[in-house]
Amino acid sequence: MDRLARILPILHWGRAYDRHALVSDGVAAVIVTIMLIPQSLAYAMLAGLPPVIGLYASILPLVAYALLGSSRTLSVGPVAVVSLLTATAASGVAAPGSPEYVAAALILAFLSGLILVAMGIFRLGFVANLLSHPVISGFITASSLLIATGQIKHILGIKAEGATLPEMLASLLENRSGIHGPTLAIGALATAFLFWSRRFLKPLLIRLGIASRPAALLARTGPVIVVAASIAAVILLDPGVAVVGEVPQGLPPLSRPVFDPALWRALLPSAFLIALIGFVESVSVAQTLAAKRRQSISPDQELIGLGMANLAAAFSSGYPVTGGFARSVVNFDAGAQTPAAGALTALGIALASVFLTPLLFHLPVAVLAATITVAVLSLADFGALRRTWRYSRSDFSALAVTLAATLAVGVETGIIAGIAVSVLLHLWASSRPHVAVIGQVPGTQHFRNVRRHRVICTPEVLGLRIDESLFFANARAIETVIQQEAAARPELRHVVLNCAAVNSIDASALESLELVMHRLSDAGIALHLSEVKGPVMDRLERSDFLHHLTGQVHLSHYHAIQALAPQAARTAHRAGLRGLSR
Amino acid sequence: MDRLARILPILHWGRAYDRHALVSDGVAAVIVTIMLIPQSLAYAMLAGLPPVIGLYASILPLVAYALLGSSRTLSVGPVAVVSLLTATAASGVAAPGSPEYVAAALILAFLSGLILVAMGIFRLGFVANLLSHPVISGFITASSLLIATGQIKHILGIKAEGATLPEMLASLLENRSGIHGPTLAIGALATAFLFWSRRFLKPLLIRLGIASRPAALLARTGPVIVVAASIAAVILLDPGVAVVGEVPQGLPPLSRPVFDPALWRALLPSAFLIALIGFVESVSVAQTLAAKRRQSISPDQELIGLGMANLAAAFSSGYPVTGGFARSVVNFDAGAQTPAAGALTALGIALASVFLTPLLFHLPVAVLAATITVAVLSLADFGALRRTWRYSRSDFSALAVTLAATLAVGVETGIIAGIAVSVLLHLWASSRPHVAVIGQVPGTQHFRNVRRHRVICTPEVLGLRIDESLFFANARAIETVIQQEAAARPELRHVVLNCAAVNSIDASALESLELVMHRLSDAGIALHLSEVKGPVMDRLERSDFLHHLTGQVHLSHYHAIQALAPQAARTAHRAGLRGLSR
Repeated sequence: MDRLARILPILHWGRAYDRHALVSDGVAAVIVTIMLIPQSLAYAMLAGLPPVIGLYASILPLVAYALLGSSRTLSVGPVAVVSLLTATAASGVAAPGSPEYVAAALILAFLSGLILVAMGIFRLGFVANLLSHPVISGFITASSLLIATGQIKHILGIKAEGATLPEMLASLLENRSGIHGPTLAIGALATAFLFWSRRFLKPLLIRLGIASRPAALLARTGPVIVVAASIAAVILLDPGVAVVGEVPQGLPPLSRPVFDPALWRALLPSAFLIALIGFVESVSVAQTLAAKRRQSISPDQELIGLGMANLAAAFSSGYPVTGGFARSVVNFDAGAQTPAAGALTALGIALASVFLTPLLFHLPVAVLAATITVAVLSLADFGALRRTWRYSRSDFSALAVTLAATLAVGVETGIIAGIAVSVLLHLWASSRPHVAVIGQVPGTQHFRNVRRHRVICTPEVLGLRIDESLFFANARAIETVIQQEAAARPELRHVVLNCAAVNSIDASALESLELVMHRLSDAGIALHLSEVKGPVMDRLERSDFLHHLTGQVHLSHYHAIQALAPQAARTAHRAGLRGLSR
Repeated sequence: MDRLARILPILHWGRAYDRHALVSDGVAAVIVTIMLIPQSLAYAMLAGLPPVIGLYASILPLVAYALLGSSRTLSVGPVAVVSLLTATAASGVAAPGSPEYVAAALILAFLSGLILVAMGIFRLGFVANLLSHPVISGFITASSLLIATGQIKHILGIKAEGATLPEMLASLLENRSGIHGPTLAIGALATAFLFWSRRFLKPLLIRLGIASRPAALLARTGPVIVVAASIAAVILLDPGVAVVGEVPQGLPPLSRPVFDPALWRALLPSAFLIALIGFVESVSVAQTLAAKRRQSISPDQELIGLGMANLAAAFSSGYPVTGGFARSVVNFDAGAQTPAAGALTALGIALASVFLTPLLFHLPVAVLAATITVAVLSLADFGALRRTWRYSRSDFSALAVTLAATLAVGVETGIIAGIAVSVLLHLWASSRPHVAVIGQVPGTQHFRNVRRHRVICTPEVLGLRIDESLFFANARAIETVIQQEAAARPELRHVVLNCAAVNSIDASALESLELVMHRLSDAGIALHLSEVKGPVMDRLERSDFLHHLTGQVHLSHYHAIQALAPQAARTAHRAGLRGLSR
């Protein structure tokens, strides 16, 4: 039962579900529905899809997540960054506006759903760790800039193109003469009101006597007010601005991703990035919210929940979805207790797509663009550049490369370049392990770095302490260090590696040790090990290394020195007052 | 002067150059020249190029390396694996045999030369660490199988095609009816003799009274004997086998890589792989030989030396070169003292290309194929599969993926898949750091793992020791562990992270710590640190983390417990006999 409840979390919270929880969830669902209608339309437009697809992506996927997700309060659906990634990927294989483009978005939802579910089943959530914080930060800031810039044309009422920031800006400049007055008026007013309501609506409502929490929730209705007001304005004034137009009325039609191996192969890398980015964003929101109520989430179960949500999107005319930050916070603040709030939100959106769609005909595109712009600009975090620069140059490079590559080349190149740079910088840092030449502290059995302590060494025996696990990134560096230290000591006969800090030795490092051993042996020098940890020793015993070992494995470094340079060890011992064992 | 000598190693060894060194180098050069002539022709054929290009690639590149390389005895020139990589890359952009194909090989030499020199200048040699030993081993074994299989058609005298092992085998089977008797006879005889001479010629010569060292060198002349004998046989018997044909006579004509941005971009990834693989192979040979004479090499200077050798190849009608294992060993064993041996070898090959090329007209292609087959099969190491499996499953996976992908998909995919798997497995291992809940050992100021020792804990304070540096791959795991441990303790008010084993905290881990701190704070729990190392503390002070810290930074874990749970600390202290400080 417990195991089943882990796979189907609804069995866990569903049993304790009562009227109280239903009321809380219901209230939250109403508020999130109101917030989600303009957002869904806007993000679908950002993804280059008909606005109604945004509504469709906010129905069945929410139900799937409610059944399988491990977060109580995460709200899934279309989000800005994933919509941008969808637009980039789909426009690589089809013309925006074509049926093939819509089909490509469906395939992306299907493939990223499969990838997420597979990662959940095989517990591969750790792959998300490839995305370091600086890379995510750089990517989100760059994406929000790209998205906001991409909306300017809708607000100005002109045509413009381009996938990168320089291209977009050049195209906007080129077409600047075509600015359409009424569109700009509506777009600018909407943008200004949305910025104002984000910052000042809540304090105003509080000053009007509304309690803090409902004021915060009401302040989130800014986009709905703008949508309603602009529809009214268009109907009354008929200013000739671009509008959303016919939106099909009714529930989402069932769909099926087209099977086309070549197309799937072309979209697979993008689907992988969408899955990864969506998962990282979603888990970080879910963990933050869970912690506030001392709940916990399971990353592997999240993969399954998000994956099934995307598969649901693929079979109900949607496009890739994930957990959104803003809407999850609203859901949480509005008092959602269980995933049932998500299912109720789905019901709300379903009702909206049946009854409200005719009203959306006159909704100005410029207002949707304003909604997107204001939402994404709050994601950009320029302060991170300064903070990261101060903290670490290496993390800053990863952030800067991601930011620059995303803006100048594209979103996919940006993420991949960021991952590559952060992995390379990490391997670079690991490739220079700290290796100390050690000698005996007089009067003790302790061995310390010769550079920091007054210690006793002998010309025939070299003690080296390696302060890191040995693996492929530092194996060659260890070879070089040992060889250089040995080359500098003409009287040398024994090298003793102190392995107290070595937690593991991989096959590359083992081969390097064998190489070093043979090279030292050619020069008449024996290689010894001391203080090898249990698990490392177990593994070494499974190789031939210990059979060939030209020296021995010593229990402690002191034992090694006693055996190899008894004279020196005794001198060092007498030099102090008495021995102190650890 | 010292600095200049590091950049131009000739200034170092050139000053002490004398008659004795000249004689040694001269003898080695003669022997290497004899060995290099058939090898150069054969590897050029393997690369899909006219055989004479192999001779050209063994002249100026050797001079460039002699001036700039840091190894005294490394012998550069065409090698098997790089020739295979060249063939793969060039046949991706041009038809084998066409002038465009030869031009592509020239561009590959130019680009990989530039990449190597740039890596040397910016000290980026550590990038080679990406290639772990299991990946290299799997790649070399797979390449040698591919190369040997590719030669079967020449030995059978049939036509066959294919870039992967299954394709090649299928094509050989399909064309098996066309086997040409005389070609097979020559090819099989040559192969058998070469295998025999590799194993039995040296013992035979020793039994005939020749000293061990000259016997070893004479035994290496097997390929030259086969070449000479087969040319004689073709001239005398005229068996109608495929021969090398017209080989241009004279010094290599100067050349210039064609500037074509699209072509360069297409060849860049291959050039990068050629540079990387060539560098790794070369450095490992150079280090092994240097160690035998207690010399050392400089990996950064090697990059410059190899890079200039490739640039020289690009401007003298050659193709990519690197340091070869077999020929470097011969050079070393023959007594080469300085890089001048390489320059003298270049002179030898130049003389050969002026005077000997007419003799090569009748050289059977099957003999070159036999030379290649015997040379590469000695590189395959199937034992590594078993050894690595026994030693570590994770290293075995990297090896097996590289081997399988190289054979079944191709050389470039093979290397890239191998690198990706080994980096992912490493990050996976690092993403699960050891975290111990610690409590006070009664009667001491020591804190140990609650699972292994009888220690005292308090319900309000949780002590956690993290046994690894914190970075992006394990940042999220640490978040999860802290949160889970905290969620399991309803009375908890303080979490103290013991950072004694934390050597660094990157920006991702810092952000995770901030997140954890805020989440704990939402639940009324303060986060403390203890035993933070100096360099980590310095860096934390450059961020805002310490300003927000809900708890404090404690000098030792004991201080922390004393401050947060004085009652418990005193009880624990009294419980033992007396305090023991470290």
